Amino acid sequence: MKIYDISLTISPDLPVWPGDPSVEMKQVTFIPKGDSCNISHVAMSVHTGTHVDAPYHFLNEGKTVEALPLEALVGPAYVIQVHDAVDRLTAEVLAQAEIPDGAERVLFKTRNSAFWGRERTFQEGFVAITADGAEWLAKRDLRLIGMDYLSVAPFGDATATHQTLLRRGIVLLEGVNLSEVQPGRYDLYCLPLKLAKSDGAPARVVLIG
Amino acid sequence: MKIYDISLTISPDLPVWPGDPSVEMKQVTFIPKGDSCNISHVAMSVHTGTHVDAPYHFLNEGKTVEALPLEALVGPAYVIQVHDAVDRLTAEVLAQAEIPDGAERVLFKTRNSAFWGRERTFQEGFVAITADGAEWLAKRDLRLIGMDYLSVAPFGDATATHQTLLRRGIVLLEGVNLSEVQPGRYDLYCLPLKLAKSDGAPARVVLIG
Repeated sequence: MKIYDISLTISPDLPVWPGDPSVEMKQVTFIPKGDSCNISHVAMSVHTGTHVDAPYHFLNEGKTVEALPLEALVGPAYVIQVHDAVDRLTAEVLAQAEIPDGAERVLFKTRNSAFWGRERTFQEGFVAITADGAEWLAKRDLRLIGMDYLSVAPFGDATATHQTLLRRGIVLLEGVNLSEVQPGRYDLYCLPLKLAKSDGAPARVVLIG
Repeated sequence: MKIYDISLTISPDLPVWPGDPSVEMKQVTFIPKGDSCNISHVAMSVHTGTHVDAPYHFLNEGKTVEALPLEALVGPAYVIQVHDAVDRLTAEVLAQAEIPDGAERVLFKTRNSAFWGRERTFQEGFVAITADGAEWLAKRDLRLIGMDYLSVAPFGDATATHQTLLRRGIVLLEGVNLSEVQPGRYDLYCLPLKLAKSDGAPARVVLIG
């Protein structure tokens, strides 16, 4: 059994969604200056780095992030390899993706994962799930869907994909780095900060297998 | 198997360490105002609520939080009941606490846990580990120690306890709420945000058992 950390490191140079503020981290006390300890503060969008979306992100009457059931966030998960030539997860692509019957949690490993090792700017051309792909996924008994860039939905076309999946109560896990993980079955532990009344939360996420 | 959430909810009215800023959460886009989605920002000390301390918090040459080994943060853990009459975890108290041989992770359930249900202000009189208690713990093969208030060390006497435990590479998990958890053995998943070069990080923490 090995623990795979699929979380992005949160730092001021992490790419963020256009319009979101960059991560701010500042150390406010310093042992070398005579303080008894080192203390830092952090400020960021709740959609920074590896994070989850709660239904309230796109559905104004939806659940907020602290109310997401741990039973959806923790459990068996499948890492599904998507060919590097694929630009969009459409219904047609997903039908051929060999998602196991009964899967409750799926993480799509696309060419996006390779961005995390080398790209320090936001990549508009990331692979994402189309509206008809979301409809296809919403018909299955999924509890969590993970994508390896900062949104499940294509850049500039966010609403339909998010609404379709969030309306079904599916947790959306965004910004995982799957570059070091082989396709297959794992145990997922996706633990977002328990932020009161929030539309999302940054998370530390590991796969064990 | 049940999942116990032992994390505090992070909100602006969560008690924080004296001198730390209160948690700031602000929603910056609003669906009812015509935005396509709801988005929030958060700002806080990295020692807010349920969090871990990295060695760098009290040791200027120590590891920062993103470098803590997941193998210390995840694994079997014991919740140890401490009688409500106990004010301090001294070496003498700890010697009688029946910590199982071979335990790598221990979480002390003290009267502090009851604060989380009812107290909205910082409690200076919380139960904590004395300097000689830390020396006693440092002689065992522990990888993680959890306490149910915002510091492992007594108020106003932080340095010796922290330095002794952090020098041994023991992860300090602070601010867990054990009020709903019975003493015994569990599997711990303590997943702090992967904050670059930080002295600590807020965490979501669950026990499974």
